[in-house]
Amino acid sequence: MLNVVVTDPPRADLAQVDRLAEYGVATVHEAIGRRGYLGPQLRPNQQGTRIAGPALTVVCWPGDNLMIHVAVEQAKPGDIIVITTTSPSTDGAFGELLATSLVARGVRGLVMGAGLRDTQELRDMGFPAWTAHVSAQGTVKETPGAVNVPVVLGGQVIRPGDAIVADDDGVCVVPRVEVGQAVAKSAARVAKEDATRQRLAAGELGLDIYGLRPKLAKVAFITADEYSRRAGEV
Amino acid sequence: MLNVVVTDPPRADLAQVDRLAEYGVATVHEAIGRRGYLGPQLRPNQQGTRIAGPALTVVCWPGDNLMIHVAVEQAKPGDIIVITTTSPSTDGAFGELLATSLVARGVRGLVMGAGLRDTQELRDMGFPAWTAHVSAQGTVKETPGAVNVPVVLGGQVIRPGDAIVADDDGVCVVPRVEVGQAVAKSAARVAKEDATRQRLAAGELGLDIYGLRPKLAKVAFITADEYSRRAGEV
Amino acid sequence: MLNVVVTDPPRADLAQVDRLAEYGVATVHEAIGRRGYLGPQLRPNQQGTRIAGPALTVVCWPGDNLMIHVAVEQAKPGDIIVITTTSPSTDGAFGELLATSLVARGVRGLVMGAGLRDTQELRDMGFPAWTAHVSAQGTVKETPGAVNVPVVLGGQVIRPGDAIVADDDGVCVVPRVEVGQAVAKSAARVAKEDATRQRLAAGELGLDIYGLRPKLAKVAFITADEYSRRAGEV
Amino acid sequence: MLNVVVTDPPRADLAQVDRLAEYGVATVHEAIGRRGYLGPQLRPNQQGTRIAGPALTVVCWPGDNLMIHVAVEQAKPGDIIVITTTSPSTDGAFGELLATSLVARGVRGLVMGAGLRDTQELRDMGFPAWTAHVSAQGTVKETPGAVNVPVVLGGQVIRPGDAIVADDDGVCVVPRVEVGQAVAKSAARVAKEDATRQRLAAGELGLDIYGLRPKLAKVAFITADEYSRRAGEV
Amino acid sequence: MLNVVVTDPPRADLAQVDRLAEYGVATVHEAIGRRGYLGPQLRPNQQGTRIAGPALTVVCWPGDNLMIHVAVEQAKPGDIIVITTTSPSTDGAFGELLATSLVARGVRGLVMGAGLRDTQELRDMGFPAWTAHVSAQGTVKETPGAVNVPVVLGGQVIRPGDAIVADDDGVCVVPRVEVGQAVAKSAARVAKEDATRQRLAAGELGLDIYGLRPKLAKVAFITADEYSRRAGEV
Amino acid sequence: MLNVVVTDPPRADLAQVDRLAEYGVATVHEAIGRRGYLGPQLRPNQQGTRIAGPALTVVCWPGDNLMIHVAVEQAKPGDIIVITTTSPSTDGAFGELLATSLVARGVRGLVMGAGLRDTQELRDMGFPAWTAHVSAQGTVKETPGAVNVPVVLGGQVIRPGDAIVADDDGVCVVPRVEVGQAVAKSAARVAKEDATRQRLAAGELGLDIYGLRPKLAKVAFITADEYSRRAGEV
Repeated sequence: MLNVVVTDPPRADLAQVDRLAEYGVATVHEAIGRRGYLGPQLRPNQQGTRIAGPALTVVCWPGDNLMIHVAVEQAKPGDIIVITTTSPSTDGAFGELLATSLVARGVRGLVMGAGLRDTQELRDMGFPAWTAHVSAQGTVKETPGAVNVPVVLGGQVIRPGDAIVADDDGVCVVPRVEVGQAVAKSAARVAKEDATRQRLAAGELGLDIYGLRPKLAKVAFITADEYSRRAGEV
Repeated sequence: MLNVVVTDPPRADLAQVDRLAEYGVATVHEAIGRRGYLGPQLRPNQQGTRIAGPALTVVCWPGDNLMIHVAVEQAKPGDIIVITTTSPSTDGAFGELLATSLVARGVRGLVMGAGLRDTQELRDMGFPAWTAHVSAQGTVKETPGAVNVPVVLGGQVIRPGDAIVADDDGVCVVPRVEVGQAVAKSAARVAKEDATRQRLAAGELGLDIYGLRPKLAKVAFITADEYSRRAGEV
Repeated sequence: MLNVVVTDPPRADLAQVDRLAEYGVATVHEAIGRRGYLGPQLRPNQQGTRIAGPALTVVCWPGDNLMIHVAVEQAKPGDIIVITTTSPSTDGAFGELLATSLVARGVRGLVMGAGLRDTQELRDMGFPAWTAHVSAQGTVKETPGAVNVPVVLGGQVIRPGDAIVADDDGVCVVPRVEVGQAVAKSAARVAKEDATRQRLAAGELGLDIYGLRPKLAKVAFITADEYSRRAGEV
Repeated sequence: MLNVVVTDPPRADLAQVDRLAEYGVATVHEAIGRRGYLGPQLRPNQQGTRIAGPALTVVCWPGDNLMIHVAVEQAKPGDIIVITTTSPSTDGAFGELLATSLVARGVRGLVMGAGLRDTQELRDMGFPAWTAHVSAQGTVKETPGAVNVPVVLGGQVIRPGDAIVADDDGVCVVPRVEVGQAVAKSAARVAKEDATRQRLAAGELGLDIYGLRPKLAKVAFITADEYSRRAGEV
Repeated sequence: MLNVVVTDPPRADLAQVDRLAEYGVATVHEAIGRRGYLGPQLRPNQQGTRIAGPALTVVCWPGDNLMIHVAVEQAKPGDIIVITTTSPSTDGAFGELLATSLVARGVRGLVMGAGLRDTQELRDMGFPAWTAHVSAQGTVKETPGAVNVPVVLGGQVIRPGDAIVADDDGVCVVPRVEVGQAVAKSAARVAKEDATRQRLAAGELGLDIYGLRPKLAKVAFITADEYSRRAGEV
Repeated sequence: MLNVVVTDPPRADLAQVDRLAEYGVATVHEAIGRRGYLGPQLRPNQQGTRIAGPALTVVCWPGDNLMIHVAVEQAKPGDIIVITTTSPSTDGAFGELLATSLVARGVRGLVMGAGLRDTQELRDMGFPAWTAHVSAQGTVKETPGAVNVPVVLGGQVIRPGDAIVADDDGVCVVPRVEVGQAVAKSAARVAKEDATRQRLAAGELGLDIYGLRPKLAKVAFITADEYSRRAGEV
């Protein structure tokens, strides 16, 4: 089913998704059990922006952005467009004109495995983007792909309507049906971290707070002199 | 002819080259037929700068910047120095002292496949640079190469005097004899894009503006329910 | 001796280390004989910061930050924590809570071969970091490693207490016993470069200042016409 | 559901899977619509071997092979073990002892995103393996993951029991419920290719056989002289 | 002039090209002045094969092999087909059917920046190939490019009809008009190396044969004891 | 002390080193505590060769093999030459003539971070090599480095005279003073593995032999039906 456009995928609830944006990528990723992070390759085109929204997924052929144009028509306010290619591509498949079109439909930002162009213009517009490459290399509009089918990006499965969270640490996906739980778990984690932060700032050690000392049973605490002696003798 | 310095290569007309800078890399690259882009590896050392100028080309041996010193003597006001190495090198072949020397000769900026150092100082000086690496690793000055011969960088041939355009999207080369045409084509493209931008901002779709719907003949537009049903049955 | 914590390694003298920070990475690296640079992979999380401090070294297993918690207890004011993994890892082993703990102990910054998270929060805190990756991917706390033993990062050996210098050009290590000499040599280099800079700014050529012309004995200076003629004939 | 072992996933029918092995990776990938290829990173440890089998999937933490031992107990004759890590890892998580254990259970081979060791011994044993790395670096056995849950490797989703096909071109996955169709489509493709091969060997052109000439409407067929003339004039 | 097919480019003389194959890549590359090597990314699909032939050049779009089919029609006996893409691509653009078609026209082998498939079949056929990737990922046949225009691959310019030499060390290009000289220089180099080899085998040192000792003026030859003493004192 | 040649470094005992070769890289690396492995980048130029010998270390500048010629004079029978560059380099710094010279001195093989050439000739000669790259690109002989000083390669410190072990899994270093212990520990490990192998071949599980089941306390063993149910409900 490569050449399919799904027109009405259920989307994560926007009110809940908005709450995920408050917590950010690292917190949400940890809160849902260290899952969903799309890896270090996806870097932000701007600094200091944190967004969340339901995924509008796109599958393009390498060097071809035909399906992004198809996806625009399927966009709903609040969406984050998530673009993959069927094989690795650095080409500049997305720029300022497509962003203009998406902004007109209320799309909040872009996550893409290929290349971004018009990077300064996008910053000027305030349209945030996370991509694996920056490239001005142009693409054709010839080969059909898919819109709103499950895609893989950064080793994660993203289904249309799943919640995307993105900030300076990268991008995280939360399955649509888990968003409510993710909000609750993130809130709990933040509360716990606030308490931990105060103790750490006051000089308490993570070794004690997290009870890590038993895991150091085989670790020898020795002086520099002792270390030199052993290294010499082997 | 590796050990050659060409002393008087014809250069692209500065007045025309200056006009290319107004359009930027993505526009010029598209306007001349999706050619000349030097790829995603060359990244700017600063944000928000757009320049153009004739190429002053240099071939260095890896880990050796002797020929950059030779190139300084050949520089003319308006030039952009374009430095390649005979094999891949990340070393910091260029820094603030060489920039000082080039600024004294009116050179506008740097494009280099190797490594840049003194990055903060170069930003403070306002000397823009696009390089494949940042590295403080020092180089020697031992092995001759060439100045103002054709070079290959980022998969593109750059001849001395060709026009270089560089901005946050990367670097593009325009053959010297095509610069006039490139200005005209870029102007036409910008005019056309301005019109398109207004239509897109007003909600019209690229699918319609570009006439893409016939290319979707084999694409099925289906509901999420229908998608689930087919995925289950295969 | 993998599972060892050395509790009292001698540290480079802080007063001298502070002077290294004035000179920066490129100068110090050149001054000590083009040694000690940790390569282009370690990139700063912030722009425009220059620090120096004695190395607090850590060896972690990939995907495991247990030993960073152990290292916090060994930290002394002025230290820069230097974290390696026993095999390549992009995981986000360090974030804002660990930084809070280190700040409480007077640690000046972080150098790490793995991934950084909470990047915006660290910039907000003013805690500088140089890492090979940015990643929100969480780590476990299971497998012991070592603290304050010699480590290898970016192809350089770093011993606990060695001086680390870091700025926008990357990271450099100076062996503890050489720090005094490195300060003196850096000062001399800066003085010499100041003089050279003035001459270059006035239009003198590096070719003449550095006496490079004899190295060009085999280089032919020819016209563009001559070049075309030879290229045609081979 | 990270810490889960599914004990009885339905597996693709072995008789059908065996037929896929006859066709090989390129043919099966094309036959099912250019899907399922795990990319160029997974390389064979041997030359000239072609296998197929149902996937026994494993999720490990980086630098940790605990779950491979868990997977051995779940193996069934004919299986191909497919091992992923929660973040990128080159470590040597699999070697000759684990292969011995799997052979005892009738497992046919290995596909893994991490590193392989005992490469010569595995060739001597005739146990085929496709991995992203070769590495002798040892792993720990500490952190639980999962067995027989859906995994992502090489940008493809692999569900337990899906059919894996592997040969010198790499690795392809066929969803379990599509295996029958894939066999039929592969057979049809091979028959068609046999006919095409004969025509091509006899000197007929793909341009004619595939009817490609209409796609060349805008392509100019010119002489070398004409090309030189146009290049000169631009 | 992207969409051009040049029908009659002059080709390097086959008799001379055949002599280049006797010398191999490393010798020819050195003989012509350390030029023309296409870099370490292009790896052979077989071991122990050494070929040479005039280049039949092709420019494809990424993920699209339309122009390879066009190139077949332009092939002449003895040619080596050299395929580039307008941006980086790992896709399997070439396999056994295209090889069958080229063999029917007397083409000697393949050099390609993209991916190869049917690797075992190509070895069985004896059709040699050097490519940057192995990949079974299929391509489309939609977007025109060019045949027999100058291309860039591995940082080298290759003009149609230039001589290609390829063996286990990789691929080298010799400009068409230099082939005669390259044969003569290669023969001279081999003769000289034969003499050197005998002296080296007899125990003479390269230091003496090449007269390198004067370049070691600043090198201190010291004992291990002396080294330890200096390292301690700094 | 960059420009130093140490003339008489103590070397690991050849008789003991020879015994390490029997055990191979994976076994020795594990036996000495999962240390010393030089990583997956160093690949063999041949298949099925296992050697060991004391390290003859060399530091070259990138693109320059002067110091390899210096090292030949320092070679002793049984040595393995270990070549590093001061910054990353793919150039073909080593080929058949240097191998001829080293064979004349009884050197057993090569380990190098740069590029190898004459790969087929080296296989024909039976001179084994492990390198990070294959490249025919030629080097100059201009800039001095060092011989028989400690070097870093693949993240490991190698001191002159340390034992190098290399086979199809890569390369491992054993500190000179630990070689005796490493032999004993390797022998013990092999004996233990032989016993384990028999039990695994007989169908016993690693889970039981290694006592891993307690580490699976949090792992749920569930049916596929149960998995589907939970995935649906979240």
